Amino acid sequence: MIKDLIERMLKGDKKATARLITLVENDEEKAREIVKKIYPFTGKAYIVGITGPPGSGKSTLLDKLIKKARQEGKIVGVIAIDPTSPFTGGALLGDRIRMQRHSTDPGVFIRSMATRGSLGGLAKATNDAIKVLDAYGCDVIFVETVGVGQIEVDIVKTADTVVLVTVPGLGDDIQAIKAGLMEIADIFVINKADKEEADKTLFELELMLDLEREKFEKRGWRPKVIKTVATLNKGIDELWSVIKEHEKWLKSADKLKEKRRFRAEEEVKTIVSDFIVSKVSKELKNNELYELVGKVANRELDPYTAAELIMEKTLGVKV
Amino acid sequence: MIKDLIERMLKGDKKATARLITLVENDEEKAREIVKKIYPFTGKAYIVGITGPPGSGKSTLLDKLIKKARQEGKIVGVIAIDPTSPFTGGALLGDRIRMQRHSTDPGVFIRSMATRGSLGGLAKATNDAIKVLDAYGCDVIFVETVGVGQIEVDIVKTADTVVLVTVPGLGDDIQAIKAGLMEIADIFVINKADKEEADKTLFELELMLDLEREKFEKRGWRPKVIKTVATLNKGIDELWSVIKEHEKWLKSADKLKEKRRFRAEEEVKTIVSDFIVSKVSKELKNNELYELVGKVANRELDPYTAAELIMEKTLGVKV
Repeated sequence: MIKDLIERMLKGDKKATARLITLVENDEEKAREIVKKIYPFTGKAYIVGITGPPGSGKSTLLDKLIKKARQEGKIVGVIAIDPTSPFTGGALLGDRIRMQRHSTDPGVFIRSMATRGSLGGLAKATNDAIKVLDAYGCDVIFVETVGVGQIEVDIVKTADTVVLVTVPGLGDDIQAIKAGLMEIADIFVINKADKEEADKTLFELELMLDLEREKFEKRGWRPKVIKTVATLNKGIDELWSVIKEHEKWLKSADKLKEKRRFRAEEEVKTIVSDFIVSKVSKELKNNELYELVGKVANRELDPYTAAELIMEKTLGVKV
Repeated sequence: MIKDLIERMLKGDKKATARLITLVENDEEKAREIVKKIYPFTGKAYIVGITGPPGSGKSTLLDKLIKKARQEGKIVGVIAIDPTSPFTGGALLGDRIRMQRHSTDPGVFIRSMATRGSLGGLAKATNDAIKVLDAYGCDVIFVETVGVGQIEVDIVKTADTVVLVTVPGLGDDIQAIKAGLMEIADIFVINKADKEEADKTLFELELMLDLEREKFEKRGWRPKVIKTVATLNKGIDELWSVIKEHEKWLKSADKLKEKRRFRAEEEVKTIVSDFIVSKVSKELKNNELYELVGKVANRELDPYTAAELIMEKTLGVKV
């Protein structure tokens, strides 16, 4: 059945592709089987991460970028990480609905993924979904995350080009969050730049970047700052061409290879960690180990000693 | 040296306590040693998690709650998770600075932790810092996270009582994020409730909660919604008494025990996973395994097969 789905996907069947993503998202065993089979067909898609605080207009911006990519005849994949939950059933956001109109375009594949489940789970599921879209034939895959937490950082970090969207005149903690993302962003977008404080924000950003001049010189790429008004389609052409400029630089400087090696290493480690945790979780249902955890809860045993005992018993690993 | 620090901490030495937190935060080996030694002295502190979107006034609210707790003679610990980065060196936010005035109070211990490093790393460091403050003698420990990502959820989830702060009239994606947090919040605070749309937000929240009536009846606790204006000290008494009401309920219904068992299990699993990942990372520097990752990057080998080979070679674990 998976073999059949993959064959259909490789022929460009959207339904089969959607089904495969659902499988990698929900079934660890099947994810393994699918990724093993499709991996040789991956590596062609260029991955653009888009992140930023809530309300910065990322989805509208993305909507315009999809249009640009389509005008160039590119096959486009979109993975939108939704901050919804099993509690609400995962309602689509307003902006997302607008973006969905591209869904009827056979050259665009849009997929929402919910932040339910574990931390590592989402990052891994996103990674696997990227592979499916890559094998499907996408030339460019946009990964959009709403939110500004560490998990979003971890997800966009896996992108080839990271676009950080902000808006003029946000409060103190947004500034701090932006700082936290500064080192991973390749391009800064000041969206809603028709607002009064846009130039002040631009100035501040450039100043922050100037302070790190040496670091960027060493790296070879100083993040660009672009003003846009996504709703009015302003600045989109420039943003798109800077994304391509960054891609060109990455490729010429052999940085893409380096980035992808790093990503491969992270991925392998995540798989190892997930496997071990799932194995340990299963074994913790066994009486003896269950009691061990009870002792930790009652402060009769510290968690490190418990972890050591559990590793020894379930994995045969001595600390 | 650690033995000495612990002795001093148990006698109420703040400097030794701060030093111990720095150690658990930065040194995996020492964290293990410290937690093992202090664990028997923990389990007394009540842990209150406070989270919500940027700009919702969490820190001001926390500032007032510290005051309330102090008026009752409680020893207070605060762990504030900062969304800063190594890039900026971790500047303190405005609100945080205001809160710092409690630092001169010997009964208050405030500690900021940065979101640098890995995902799991922060959650674990926070957990360990909680233990240090617990052993130090804190009666109540507030854990504040700025941001609304999964990592923040994971951190506050470990609290006994989770307070989710929101403000009236936020945009679409905030609503969705709030929904994502709905199932983990015990108390909702609508701060800045002197704003026009406060009652609408209250109504919407209560409506969302009503939809899940059955779930809450089963659980035995329906989240409370409280309006506050932290800057004017309005609603703080009520919030504080609801926190204590929730604590009382948790304790009477044996739910606290359940919660702490769950927490112990999660913690043990995290330790196992961290240990394995760090072991694997070290071994990946070895030539043969390094090449394996290179093959994954070049699409000659899929990441699952690589992970299986690595687990077998480094841990002797067969998949």
